[in-house]
Amino acid sequence: MSREWRIGVAGLGVVGGGLVRFLQERPGFAPGGDTVRLVGVTARDRDKPRGADLSGVEWFDHPLSLAASPEVDLFIELIGGAEGVARAAVTAALKLGKPVVTANKALIAAHGLELAALAERTGASLHFEAAVMGGVPAVKMLREGLVGDDVISIAGILNGTCNFILTEMERTERSFAAVLAEAQRLGYAEADPTTDVGGFDAAHKIVVLAALAFGGAPNFAAAEVEGIQAVELIDIRLARDLGYRIKLIAEAAGSARGASVRVAPALVPLNHPLAQAGGALNALFVEGQRVGRLYIQGAGAGAGPTAAAVAADIADVIAGGRRPVFGRPATELKPLPSLERDRQIDKAFLRLMVRDEPGTIAAISEALAKAGVSIDSFLQRPVEDSGHVPIVLITHPATEMAIDDAVTHIASIPAVIERPRSIRVART
Amino acid sequence: MSREWRIGVAGLGVVGGGLVRFLQERPGFAPGGDTVRLVGVTARDRDKPRGADLSGVEWFDHPLSLAASPEVDLFIELIGGAEGVARAAVTAALKLGKPVVTANKALIAAHGLELAALAERTGASLHFEAAVMGGVPAVKMLREGLVGDDVISIAGILNGTCNFILTEMERTERSFAAVLAEAQRLGYAEADPTTDVGGFDAAHKIVVLAALAFGGAPNFAAAEVEGIQAVELIDIRLARDLGYRIKLIAEAAGSARGASVRVAPALVPLNHPLAQAGGALNALFVEGQRVGRLYIQGAGAGAGPTAAAVAADIADVIAGGRRPVFGRPATELKPLPSLERDRQIDKAFLRLMVRDEPGTIAAISEALAKAGVSIDSFLQRPVEDSGHVPIVLITHPATEMAIDDAVTHIASIPAVIERPRSIRVART
Repeated sequence: MSREWRIGVAGLGVVGGGLVRFLQERPGFAPGGDTVRLVGVTARDRDKPRGADLSGVEWFDHPLSLAASPEVDLFIELIGGAEGVARAAVTAALKLGKPVVTANKALIAAHGLELAALAERTGASLHFEAAVMGGVPAVKMLREGLVGDDVISIAGILNGTCNFILTEMERTERSFAAVLAEAQRLGYAEADPTTDVGGFDAAHKIVVLAALAFGGAPNFAAAEVEGIQAVELIDIRLARDLGYRIKLIAEAAGSARGASVRVAPALVPLNHPLAQAGGALNALFVEGQRVGRLYIQGAGAGAGPTAAAVAADIADVIAGGRRPVFGRPATELKPLPSLERDRQIDKAFLRLMVRDEPGTIAAISEALAKAGVSIDSFLQRPVEDSGHVPIVLITHPATEMAIDDAVTHIASIPAVIERPRSIRVART
Repeated sequence: MSREWRIGVAGLGVVGGGLVRFLQERPGFAPGGDTVRLVGVTARDRDKPRGADLSGVEWFDHPLSLAASPEVDLFIELIGGAEGVARAAVTAALKLGKPVVTANKALIAAHGLELAALAERTGASLHFEAAVMGGVPAVKMLREGLVGDDVISIAGILNGTCNFILTEMERTERSFAAVLAEAQRLGYAEADPTTDVGGFDAAHKIVVLAALAFGGAPNFAAAEVEGIQAVELIDIRLARDLGYRIKLIAEAAGSARGASVRVAPALVPLNHPLAQAGGALNALFVEGQRVGRLYIQGAGAGAGPTAAAVAADIADVIAGGRRPVFGRPATELKPLPSLERDRQIDKAFLRLMVRDEPGTIAAISEALAKAGVSIDSFLQRPVEDSGHVPIVLITHPATEMAIDDAVTHIASIPAVIERPRSIRVART
C-alpha cells in the first residue's frame, strides 16, 4: 500500500540545496512506508554549483511549468516573495489539487486566506512550517498542539538578522550601521537589508502566527511595524544599566474577534528568556488560557533547520489527515481585525539628552506629571565630553497616548536638546 | 460529511474533570467540522463532586465496560499505572479498533511497543501527548516536527514535583524532608512520593521521549534512575557559590542503534535555561543534527495544561492521517538497547567534609591525581560550628569510572570524615 511521492522543488538556494541533498539521501524518511523521489527542480541560475547531484532530475525553466508538471505530485516552493512567480506557481499547483509545501512567509502573510480557500476547494493541502522560525515547529504547535486551548497572546524574537545585529551592538559596543555593514560582509544580512532590519520579515511571521493562534486569516495590513534602524548604542547601554536588553519583539494579543499585532524594539528584563536568546536565535512565548505560558526557542534560519522543517511538512502531507490550512476552514476565516491599542498600557523607557542646568530634573518631572505619567526608575549618567547629560527613565505603566504626551512636554523644555527617545518595555 | 465522535472518559481526577468541562463547553473545538460528545465516564468514586454536570452522561462501573461499550467511539484513559485496569481498558479499546488517548506515561513506558503493535494491527490510533510535559507539545514535536532530522540528544526537567522541591529548598534554605512535607500538605506531592522524588515519573517520560527521538520502542528497564532524596541543602548552597544550580535532569543520548537514558540530579550553570526553569515548570532541550538545539518550556502538569494536551490528541484522532504510534511502524521497532556509558565524560561536583588539618588539601589533590582527575574549580568555606570544613570542587571532564576512583581515594584520607558526595555536571 505504500506509494512514491514525486517531488518538485522550486528554488535552489541554501535551503533548497539542503533539502535536495536530504531527499536524495533519505527517500524513506517519512513515517508509514511511503517514499519520496526528487523528480524536478527549477532555479534562477541553472549553472550555479549546488553541492547536490541533479543528474537524474529534470530541470524546468519556469516554476509554473514545474508546479503544473504531471510528473510532480508534491510541489515545494522556496522562491520567496509575496507576488510574482512564487504566488503564481503555488496557485497553479493548488488549482490542480497538488499539495504544496512552502517556506514563503511573505506569500502566506499576504495571500494566506486566498491560498487556503483554494487548497480547501481543490482538496490540496498547504503547509508552511518553514516559513516561521526555521526548524522550530511553532506552526505545528499553534495549529495542532494548542487546538484545545484559547491563545491570549504570543510574543517573540522572529528575525535572526535583527537579533544578531542587536546582540553584536551590545557585545562589541558598535553602532547599528557598523554592525550591519559587518553582517552584510559575512552574508548574515542582505545587500538591501530593509526586509529584515525594517521589521517586515518579523511582521510577516507574527501575522501568520497570529492567524493560527487566534483563528483568523493573516492580516498584514493591520500590523504595526517598526524596525531596529533607530536603535542607538547609547540606548542599549543605558537599558542594560537599568536591567534590560533591547530586542526586536514581534507580538500579538487578542482573540478571533481581533488582535493587535506589532513588531517594534522593546526592552526585556535581562533575566527574561527573550533577553537571553542571543545571536541568530528565534524564540516565542505563547500564553494560552489553559496551558499557561509556553516558551520555545531555536535556530530560526539556515539550511539545516529550514530544510528539516520542509521535510516535516512533506511527512505531514504524506501522513494525510483532514485539517484546514489555518486550523479552521477558510470559508469561516476573516482577516483578523486590528484591535485599538489606545488602552494598551505598558512601561516605557525614555532617554533624554539635556544640558546640565539647574531645575532640569524638576522640569522633566513636571512634564511627566502633566501627562499623568509616573516614574518607576531613573538614571542620570555622568556628563559626557559634549557637556550633554543623558538621562534615562522607566515609567510606570501608562497608555501610549500618555507616553507620547510626556515626550512632547519634555521636548519643549529648553534644557532638553532633542526629542526624547521612547522605547516600550515589553510585557513579560 | 461531518460526524459526531462519542467520547468515553475513564478517570475523573483533576485532569478528567477539566477535560469533561472542556468537552461539554466546546463540542466543536476540533478543526474540520466534526463534533464530540461525552457519552460515558467511569471513576473509582461515583459520588465525589467533579464540578461538571454529568447528568446526561452514562456512568460505567468499570473502565473495561466503558472501553468496550458500542456507544463509545474514542476512549480516553486517565486512570494511570502501568498495569491493572488502565492497561486492560486501553488494550480492550485498541483490540476493537477504537482510537485511544491516554495521559499514562507509566503505561506507555512499560507497554508502548505492545500497545502500538496492537493499534497498528487493528487500525486504531494511540495518542499520548498528555503523558509527557503536560501542555507542552513535546511528543508532537519529536514524533512529527523532527521527522526530517536525526536527534542526537534530549535533556530536560520532566517532573514538576522534584523541580518545585529543589527550587523551594534553595529559596527557603530548608532541607529536602521539610520541603517535601510542605509539598505534601499543599497537595503538590503524593502521600507516597516515591514515584516523583525517586525519579521514576521523570524516567517514564524520558523513556517515552527517547523512543520517539531515536526511533525505537520505550525501554524502561534500560534507564538509570536516581531521585532527589539524597540532595542536601549544603550541596545546593555550595553549587550556587560555584555558579550552578542542582536540577533533576532526565536525559537520553544516542540513535536508533541504542541510547543511554538516565535520570539523576545534575549541576546546571546558573545562566542556563534549565537552571532558570523554576517551580513546577517542565523544560526540554532537543539537539538535532539539522535543527541544532531546540528548547521548549511550560507547565508540565495541572488540569488546564493536561486537559488541553488530551484535547489536542482528540483533534489529531479526528483529523485522521496515517502515522505510526512511535513514528516508525511497530513491527520495525526494537526496545532501544542501552549504550554503555563507560566512555561518558562529564565534569563532576565533589563535596567533602574534612577536619581542618594541615596537609589535607595536598592529600585530596594527590588522590585526584591518582585517579587521573584534574580540578576545574575549588572552593573552601569557612569552618562551621562542628569544626568540620566543607570543601567543594568541580573536576575537569572525566569518565564516571575515574570520578568513582577519585571518590574512593579521597574517602580513604583520614581527615575526610565521610564519603564525598559526587554529583554530575550536566553537559549543556
